[in-house]
Amino acid sequence: MPFRKIINDPVYGFITIDDELINQVIAHPYFQRLRRIGQMAMANLVYPGAVHSRLHHALGAYHLMGIALNELKNKGTNITAAEEQAAKMAILLHDIGHGPFSHALEHELVESMHHEDLSLMIIHELNKQFNGQLNLALDIFTDQYHKKFLYQLISGQLDVDRMDYLTRDSFFTGVNEGVIGYDRILKMLIVNNGDLMVEEKSIYSIEKFLVARRLMYWQVYLHKTVLCAEQMLKRIIKRAKFVKASTQLPLHNFITKPIQTVTLEEFCTLDDYDVMAAIKGWCNHEDKILSFLCNGLINRQLLKVRYFGNPVDDNLVQEKLAEAGIKLNLNMDEASWLVFTGEVSSSTYNPDDEHIHILFKDGHVKDISEVDNALINQNLMGKVKKYYICYLR
Amino acid sequence: MPFRKIINDPVYGFITIDDELINQVIAHPYFQRLRRIGQMAMANLVYPGAVHSRLHHALGAYHLMGIALNELKNKGTNITAAEEQAAKMAILLHDIGHGPFSHALEHELVESMHHEDLSLMIIHELNKQFNGQLNLALDIFTDQYHKKFLYQLISGQLDVDRMDYLTRDSFFTGVNEGVIGYDRILKMLIVNNGDLMVEEKSIYSIEKFLVARRLMYWQVYLHKTVLCAEQMLKRIIKRAKFVKASTQLPLHNFITKPIQTVTLEEFCTLDDYDVMAAIKGWCNHEDKILSFLCNGLINRQLLKVRYFGNPVDDNLVQEKLAEAGIKLNLNMDEASWLVFTGEVSSSTYNPDDEHIHILFKDGHVKDISEVDNALINQNLMGKVKKYYICYLR
Amino acid sequence: MPFRKIINDPVYGFITIDDELINQVIAHPYFQRLRRIGQMAMANLVYPGAVHSRLHHALGAYHLMGIALNELKNKGTNITAAEEQAAKMAILLHDIGHGPFSHALEHELVESMHHEDLSLMIIHELNKQFNGQLNLALDIFTDQYHKKFLYQLISGQLDVDRMDYLTRDSFFTGVNEGVIGYDRILKMLIVNNGDLMVEEKSIYSIEKFLVARRLMYWQVYLHKTVLCAEQMLKRIIKRAKFVKASTQLPLHNFITKPIQTVTLEEFCTLDDYDVMAAIKGWCNHEDKILSFLCNGLINRQLLKVRYFGNPVDDNLVQEKLAEAGIKLNLNMDEASWLVFTGEVSSSTYNPDDEHIHILFKDGHVKDISEVDNALINQNLMGKVKKYYICYLR
Amino acid sequence: MPFRKIINDPVYGFITIDDELINQVIAHPYFQRLRRIGQMAMANLVYPGAVHSRLHHALGAYHLMGIALNELKNKGTNITAAEEQAAKMAILLHDIGHGPFSHALEHELVESMHHEDLSLMIIHELNKQFNGQLNLALDIFTDQYHKKFLYQLISGQLDVDRMDYLTRDSFFTGVNEGVIGYDRILKMLIVNNGDLMVEEKSIYSIEKFLVARRLMYWQVYLHKTVLCAEQMLKRIIKRAKFVKASTQLPLHNFITKPIQTVTLEEFCTLDDYDVMAAIKGWCNHEDKILSFLCNGLINRQLLKVRYFGNPVDDNLVQEKLAEAGIKLNLNMDEASWLVFTGEVSSSTYNPDDEHIHILFKDGHVKDISEVDNALINQNLMGKVKKYYICYLR
Repeated sequence: MPFRKIINDPVYGFITIDDELINQVIAHPYFQRLRRIGQMAMANLVYPGAVHSRLHHALGAYHLMGIALNELKNKGTNITAAEEQAAKMAILLHDIGHGPFSHALEHELVESMHHEDLSLMIIHELNKQFNGQLNLALDIFTDQYHKKFLYQLISGQLDVDRMDYLTRDSFFTGVNEGVIGYDRILKMLIVNNGDLMVEEKSIYSIEKFLVARRLMYWQVYLHKTVLCAEQMLKRIIKRAKFVKASTQLPLHNFITKPIQTVTLEEFCTLDDYDVMAAIKGWCNHEDKILSFLCNGLINRQLLKVRYFGNPVDDNLVQEKLAEAGIKLNLNMDEASWLVFTGEVSSSTYNPDDEHIHILFKDGHVKDISEVDNALINQNLMGKVKKYYICYLR
Repeated sequence: MPFRKIINDPVYGFITIDDELINQVIAHPYFQRLRRIGQMAMANLVYPGAVHSRLHHALGAYHLMGIALNELKNKGTNITAAEEQAAKMAILLHDIGHGPFSHALEHELVESMHHEDLSLMIIHELNKQFNGQLNLALDIFTDQYHKKFLYQLISGQLDVDRMDYLTRDSFFTGVNEGVIGYDRILKMLIVNNGDLMVEEKSIYSIEKFLVARRLMYWQVYLHKTVLCAEQMLKRIIKRAKFVKASTQLPLHNFITKPIQTVTLEEFCTLDDYDVMAAIKGWCNHEDKILSFLCNGLINRQLLKVRYFGNPVDDNLVQEKLAEAGIKLNLNMDEASWLVFTGEVSSSTYNPDDEHIHILFKDGHVKDISEVDNALINQNLMGKVKKYYICYLR
Repeated sequence: MPFRKIINDPVYGFITIDDELINQVIAHPYFQRLRRIGQMAMANLVYPGAVHSRLHHALGAYHLMGIALNELKNKGTNITAAEEQAAKMAILLHDIGHGPFSHALEHELVESMHHEDLSLMIIHELNKQFNGQLNLALDIFTDQYHKKFLYQLISGQLDVDRMDYLTRDSFFTGVNEGVIGYDRILKMLIVNNGDLMVEEKSIYSIEKFLVARRLMYWQVYLHKTVLCAEQMLKRIIKRAKFVKASTQLPLHNFITKPIQTVTLEEFCTLDDYDVMAAIKGWCNHEDKILSFLCNGLINRQLLKVRYFGNPVDDNLVQEKLAEAGIKLNLNMDEASWLVFTGEVSSSTYNPDDEHIHILFKDGHVKDISEVDNALINQNLMGKVKKYYICYLR
Repeated sequence: MPFRKIINDPVYGFITIDDELINQVIAHPYFQRLRRIGQMAMANLVYPGAVHSRLHHALGAYHLMGIALNELKNKGTNITAAEEQAAKMAILLHDIGHGPFSHALEHELVESMHHEDLSLMIIHELNKQFNGQLNLALDIFTDQYHKKFLYQLISGQLDVDRMDYLTRDSFFTGVNEGVIGYDRILKMLIVNNGDLMVEEKSIYSIEKFLVARRLMYWQVYLHKTVLCAEQMLKRIIKRAKFVKASTQLPLHNFITKPIQTVTLEEFCTLDDYDVMAAIKGWCNHEDKILSFLCNGLINRQLLKVRYFGNPVDDNLVQEKLAEAGIKLNLNMDEASWLVFTGEVSSSTYNPDDEHIHILFKDGHVKDISEVDNALINQNLMGKVKKYYICYLR
């Protein structure tokens, strides 16, 4: 009997693993590490169900890739067994470079590196360990393979990555409005002149998908409480580095040593548990800024946060800094660790760097923002920026 | 033990009837008739699950009314037991004036009357039979009651009628993209200065609700095949009147007599079964236009239909008329029963006649189209019109 | 591009039709007729959502067949493209012989014939019209094909027919307890020595499936109100025949002529609409038994019904007969049309005529009732019988 | 406006907090700690979605308590506002005594104490901090309050604790067969002579509930891989104590000191993060048993496990011990840490210590195992025991 394993998934029912190499990669400690990295960092402080792991997301995206490839094959696109395995492998590993708390700490622990770069380094390492069997997956992952649509399925406007994370995150948060018709969109995918696009009759589903993403950004990912908690988390790491707070190995090295001296091997053992355990330890740290932030995060006694449509009034900042100084007996420098501003942005559809192409029955192609009566028009195209201030309660 | 009945509903789980008068009205033959009237007319020809009844929708809207009133009471709005019963009664009966195939035949069987007028007449009749116990429900239904928000819950931008039909229709069609966060919107309802509005933090849910409605209109209610089947249905009734086709009583009177001579009592016995049975009978009618249309509808051999962004080119119409004439040996007059054009329209949000007001935390109120970075902006505000032609395959 | 059509289904998401012959059979008026036959007869009087059609069930079972065959192929069972098409065709048509109100009138309109016999006759007729392309489907449907598991998928303890109807009926009634893990069971199917069985690790799912079926029988299919309404429906037809009540053709022939003189063609035009329209007409019939029953059914003013664990006490029957006689001024013969008893039964698992075989990892096979700590043991194996009486309120 | 907070829950939609005291207790660090304790310990190694927290379960049970009390009040049971608050408080805190990895480590970290005892101690402590406002909750929690049904809702055959955990665990694992009709059961609850029971028409739902629980036990909670991982976890703690492995405070004290010297305060800071961080640290511990177990758990390279219907054959144990000794160069004593046997048991319904009473319409009461044609009969009443062995791959 051929190799075959099924995994229960509350989102899709069952995920089937029917390839031995993929099964071996899943079993590898580097991949298993993703089990201990939350997909949504601090979102669970607002949405208690949002505790699913990045491993779960990776499996989900892998599942959708299988469906997508099947649909394309059924529509006559030629995809070989090797390409199928490689595309599934590439999506399985697309996030393997994420460190503790994913995006929230992406640039704090390992400065100046995107998780995609780390993913690539780790896939290369795995490829070595698996004797080059991931070569084709690497070609696809780095967009060097001639069948461009395979890359577009991994990273593009309609990639299975965002289809899974929107579906999965709305499922686990319970924000039903974030639900997208991923199954319908997958059925509408089509390859035209080598490019991934969607059939005409999916226009409304695609518009809905963009609106759902917009909603998920503002209602969930950038929810002010979530934002605040993640800012506190960032500042904890920053402050720990600043005061050279000691903690367990291997996190210790990331906090106290120049990043160049840390190995990929060390990175691959890090996960949420190290960071949280460190934070729990620092609750009693002698540096009062650090311990204040750590206690706040652990006990969900967060800073107060407000959003504005315009940059935060400097008078407000000064006022809050002064208040903090008095309340906790801090100088201005110290207070600025607890009272700070920033900005966030999100775009519903930005035709400068993204394109969703609609293939009409008569063969012509239009951008989703150019169809008749498009929902996605001028007003929605730029980025929406919001400005925030966090300060002491 | 107080009166209490529960009804299984796949959409909401359970619907509870805990008022004897409401139970009696539900048991009345006029209400039970709604069991035999499909909520979505011919939509099941495209979406086979869309066979739910108007009775089911009425019960669903009644259920949501209960939740809405509860939420408002929890927020401090004063609503008496009598008002609660009356508001629930009014929504329960809001569609009782629908005849066979609801909107699809609304102006064919009983010309020049909206179903709302018929609903009102029937509620008056029921009020007589129930000795005036529906007086307050009538006041609310006709917007004569001083607590305006009760009427707004029945008929307004955020009424429980459309919240139920969007939810229910997307459920039974399986068009998941039509799902709205009805539960979240209900939790966000609030009465401010006597008007129904929603809290600030529901903005994204409301935008999503409007986009979902837009999608349901174009993807489901005005799906070209559904539109075509419903046009055929209308033309069957028109043609039957034209050729004075006989059928069973009481439908017979509606087909053959001046509408003034037909009684409300007779109307209240009509349902989908009369019309479909008549159509089945007319499949063998000697008038070939009538039998052609009837056979087409019964056997799902529909006319061909195309949508255009602009009015249909008259040359195309002439061409199709000529083709039909030859295929079925018809003169132009006859052919025009089978080859015809029309237009449909739908608006996502039309601030001329509709308003969704957002209540901000600081007490000010804004229209949903005027909030920062509104999704619903200029481009979405007018009506979108489409033009269609139906013709012989 | 290969032929491909997708249909929205609220139960499974999408049903894909990717075979032209199957598409043509679906488009045939005989199959389209199933659109007008309710899957659950009168159950909607208790469960208002239960108005789905037999066409929908047929499509659903067809969908599950596709999944089942795919799973078996993935496990190494050899199934040719022709066999796949034929098995899907056979399940698509397995219920095509159902007449109006399915089981409820199965033996009233066409006496002494099971719907399976009629299905077979109709498939033969379709096979003629499609020039023998349904030969293999017929072989499978009649269990004459050497790959026995294909027949077992259509009619057996684990056939996709009952997997769909349990899933679909619990979905539309909203009786969540009837939900079975159809997807898990399908993943566990396996062919062993030519026989369909399930893998060891599905034992609990199978037990759950049997308990869910038991629940659906007693809570839904044999719900006392449903039973009563369906008995009234039967008696209406019986009485109509008895008094030779006239109605529209072709139902007329079934009511008034010897069954031998009625043609298959005539049967294939019958549906729920004919029967309901006739019943509506008979509401004013001069025979007071007939009109009483018809009004009761139409207005949901049903007889009263009670269940007993033992045969109904004859004294009770006599008492109720007498009461009815007085209330409606009937003689005993007439009263017995409105006051009557009967019995129903259902078995959870009956090893005399059904077998679910479990294939253990070491290759041995056991009946589900013989595994360690089986839920399905002696006590559950016989039939459970209940006795009922219906009588005037 | 009255106090009111809503929390998104993927299982129930929204959970409403409308009481300030309850909100304050939820905000307390002792309760927030439950956010960092997984509800299902190691089950996520098999069911990746099963990562929900005990805080989430507590909120869910609190939500169901609200529904249950509402239903009972609607049926005429007298429940005061104070009792309602107290019953909700008691269920909210019923699991607050759980330590890291809940049941899996229940008797390892704090020997000889059940989590219920610790819950009680912590509620007493909270009662102190909240100035006696939890007195009534304590009375109910300890079954000293005269309205016994309030206690039965917290701890009994039909308590909202197990209704939530079965519902929630089946939701997050994706094991749909574990779904129970919690909403139907809640609607069927009734108080009779002061005792909580269910109405007659819920019999099938209750039977289904018991079968679903049975399934969840064997398919999920006692899944052999889950069992094995949790046994490894236990042995890691045992071994760490044995070799006095050092780790971070405050876990350190639980590992290295006599349990009497540890404070409740210290216990209340422990969570899964401490244990997992410690295990990650011990991956490089010099004790090879400890490091072997730790690496196995972290990298999901588990021991092999087999279930038997009878006690494990001693020859098999000896053989596996010998194998382990050779593979890892261990003496028998050491090998017995990696090769071991045990037993687990679960009962579907055990009338010795549990009772579900059915209230019939005529007022008499029967045990669920004594109704006509009961599913729960002799065979299902005892405990089912299984025996397992874990050993090296």
